[in-house]
Amino acid sequence: MHARDLVVDFPAVAMETPAVDAARLLAEHDLPGLIVVDGDGRPLCVLPGTQVLRMAVPRYCQDDPALARVVDEGHADLFVRALGSRTVRECLPEQPRELPITDPGATVLEVAALMARTRSPLVAVVEGGRLIGAVTLHGLLDHLL
Amino acid sequence: MHARDLVVDFPAVAMETPAVDAARLLAEHDLPGLIVVDGDGRPLCVLPGTQVLRMAVPRYCQDDPALARVVDEGHADLFVRALGSRTVRECLPEQPRELPITDPGATVLEVAALMARTRSPLVAVVEGGRLIGAVTLHGLLDHLL
Repeated sequence: MHARDLVVDFPAVAMETPAVDAARLLAEHDLPGLIVVDGDGRPLCVLPGTQVLRMAVPRYCQDDPALARVVDEGHADLFVRALGSRTVRECLPEQPRELPITDPGATVLEVAALMARTRSPLVAVVEGGRLIGAVTLHGLLDHLL
Repeated sequence: MHARDLVVDFPAVAMETPAVDAARLLAEHDLPGLIVVDGDGRPLCVLPGTQVLRMAVPRYCQDDPALARVVDEGHADLFVRALGSRTVRECLPEQPRELPITDPGATVLEVAALMARTRSPLVAVVEGGRLIGAVTLHGLLDHLL
């Protein structure tokens, strides 16, 4: 059993993908994050789901939780407006999280060790320099148990 | 719309819960982590899924990825044996991750700000000192988009 047997299609986004589209992908697929790829399909980093949220919460609510309690504006409108024309690039943390990468021939144990070491619930599987999918913590545990 | 409208049942474990049972809960429910509670149902911290994995990967494989590539023993056997009689307590990181907590009356915006600030895809909802469930990043994005 190798990474190639556990790999699943995984939505990738580009630096210029609108943040709203990234948020929709996260919501639709129930993912811990998205993989950001360059123009050649090479994985660059992970965009954690909570980072998209960070851009969508107005600054004054992050600074003052008491304000967030009393805002009675429609949440969805506020959310989409806050994301506005921002892109994935603007949502990335200053220190983007390392994206663990492996190849299709990696053993299950190798993938598990990589996830454990990097504390990432997601490992990108790359072949010939291009992203072909990912192994998720859930998929791995499902196989192991 | 408040936390009470978004809260979902969320499996809780105790410090003494066997690590194998925690891993099974993670696999069955596709969760980013588990909430650890004390004997009175008060939430203590989060057990991230990757930490359970860390305990299940033999030390020699974590130290030397090349070894992990050549191990041909049944992965599932190895995994369950490595977890052995360990408990959740032994899986927790030395610096347990802060568990964001809110009350049922928090607004959606408050929950979103809390997730964004703590970078946690999971917020525990507590009433009268007891865990009543959690709001997940997925549930929140689903509502907002």
